[in-house]
Amino acid sequence: MRIVLDAMGTDNFPTPDVEGAVLAAREYDVEVILVGDEQKVAPALAAHNTNGLKISIVHAPEMLTMEDKGLALALKAKRKEPKTSVAVGIDLVKKGEAAAFVTMGNTGGTVAMAYFRLGTIEGVERPALAGPFPTKKGSCLVLDIGANPDCKPENIVQFAQMGTIYAERVRGVKNPRVGILANGEEGGKGNQLTKDSYHALKESGLNFMGNLEPKMLLAGEADVAVTDGFTGNIMLKTSEAVAKLILESVKDKIQNASPLVKIGGLLVRPTLRSLRSMLDPSEEGAAPLLGANGLVFIGHGSSNAVAIKNAIRVAKQAAEANILNSIRDEIARTLAKAN
Amino acid sequence: MRIVLDAMGTDNFPTPDVEGAVLAAREYDVEVILVGDEQKVAPALAAHNTNGLKISIVHAPEMLTMEDKGLALALKAKRKEPKTSVAVGIDLVKKGEAAAFVTMGNTGGTVAMAYFRLGTIEGVERPALAGPFPTKKGSCLVLDIGANPDCKPENIVQFAQMGTIYAERVRGVKNPRVGILANGEEGGKGNQLTKDSYHALKESGLNFMGNLEPKMLLAGEADVAVTDGFTGNIMLKTSEAVAKLILESVKDKIQNASPLVKIGGLLVRPTLRSLRSMLDPSEEGAAPLLGANGLVFIGHGSSNAVAIKNAIRVAKQAAEANILNSIRDEIARTLAKAN
Repeated sequence: MRIVLDAMGTDNFPTPDVEGAVLAAREYDVEVILVGDEQKVAPALAAHNTNGLKISIVHAPEMLTMEDKGLALALKAKRKEPKTSVAVGIDLVKKGEAAAFVTMGNTGGTVAMAYFRLGTIEGVERPALAGPFPTKKGSCLVLDIGANPDCKPENIVQFAQMGTIYAERVRGVKNPRVGILANGEEGGKGNQLTKDSYHALKESGLNFMGNLEPKMLLAGEADVAVTDGFTGNIMLKTSEAVAKLILESVKDKIQNASPLVKIGGLLVRPTLRSLRSMLDPSEEGAAPLLGANGLVFIGHGSSNAVAIKNAIRVAKQAAEANILNSIRDEIARTLAKAN
Repeated sequence: MRIVLDAMGTDNFPTPDVEGAVLAAREYDVEVILVGDEQKVAPALAAHNTNGLKISIVHAPEMLTMEDKGLALALKAKRKEPKTSVAVGIDLVKKGEAAAFVTMGNTGGTVAMAYFRLGTIEGVERPALAGPFPTKKGSCLVLDIGANPDCKPENIVQFAQMGTIYAERVRGVKNPRVGILANGEEGGKGNQLTKDSYHALKESGLNFMGNLEPKMLLAGEADVAVTDGFTGNIMLKTSEAVAKLILESVKDKIQNASPLVKIGGLLVRPTLRSLRSMLDPSEEGAAPLLGANGLVFIGHGSSNAVAIKNAIRVAKQAAEANILNSIRDEIARTLAKAN
């Protein structure tokens, strides 16, 4: 099993990226190809004891930055000879030299690269980013969390199909419960997209439970939640911002309180820390771009080595479960039924 | 100054509703008309010392419930002779017998009632619910938080105009900063509605600061945030659910921890409680339905007497500031410019 990791992905590249690769190679018996600027990646790798580990470097002279967008990005994505670490990495997956590509870099840039260089699975119109969202009981897979700001009901149904397969085969959930994110519990509630998708999902043969309000999602009532990439992204970012605001406010308030409250604060500090890690979406490492014709995982730029190790583990599980084939079969079956 | 309060609004009507009216009449020198079932409201009122207070009851034989929706609701809303407390209350505003109507009841039902019975200010296509959202620095007015699940750019611009007037005249913000909720800071980011609205807002003459990511909103970078009612509602409900999950998890974790951590928990408990009230959207009492041709405020069904008192205070401020006229003038000016 060979996984390609973008060594230039995190905000502090290549140090956490390379360390994450070393941890994964050691722990999961996986072969890792690091793509990136050899001048920077080789010294970072040399700092580790890689005895007995299968880690190699493939040189890529350039990298995607946050400035890569619009036409400039499209031109880079369409270049025959790949130069950026993301393009080189994705091409290794395309050529079958690796089972999956993992990056902590520019999300929009990676989605565009994957779309242009790998294309989509036949019948899939839009690939979707499937992000695990922390809940009271574990986590819920939300898609799309940002690849498609505007969606049609057909896209939402495909997101539900792909999310179901991923939840079942990679996350080990039996008969995943699928809900559609909405502003009310009843089927008639929502915007036009939600209402139209609701009817299509009812007839999809999936384990569709209906509308899902945010509090139901957070309570763990669904395994898969579908929505357009704009709403999904706003929901994700709102949760992160609210969680950060609350934990910071607790800290501030305790620091400015009486000595007795401060002592209390010291005593509960480990508890608050464990809560932060529970709410940390990087625990699962990265979100798969489902529907692309190849396995691509995208994580946070702020990821540390452990998050990267986790991302590589999840990518390996998805490759072993052969979810690309499962998605291909499911979509083909649906299209055959419709015709 | 006379305000009508729906005495049948809260989940525990009429006790908190009536108590809130008594508190407001005592504290703000305001006259309150309670609308509702006299058989229930009169005894609840008799339980208070109302000496010297101007509180009266107007009988309404029926009430809106959460079951009132769709066609049944439309028929009730269009009835010539009002029967529900919401319809009777809104009609008192329409006839000029009160300056504003306040309810803690069914949001969708009240919006529909207001739309049918009051209509909109000339030139306003869609009234919007403007909810104050807690931020690190105070609060940001978000509209729409639920009246219009599907919007056009023209609606969003009107939301921005109405929100600016409300922030300025009722909340005392000078030259309010307006942002559009989006999944990225740059103007090019967002779904089609966000992008089209961005351009329209740029040319609106408002103090438009551009795209607003959730973390910027929570940090207090804007005074008014505009979005469609579906996204706004999902954002609001996600924040409430995340805040609740975190505070509950802190409590659970502390209760199941070592005795020392438990002692720490007791010491920080007042701090956590004060945080809960900071995050409580009911502090400001209720959200105005801006653009309706009459002042209507809608709050949480779970509101207590203090939240209701606050809602009455805010309704009084809005009436004193004569924001209906300000909105009418601003919309007329914009329409004149466009022609």
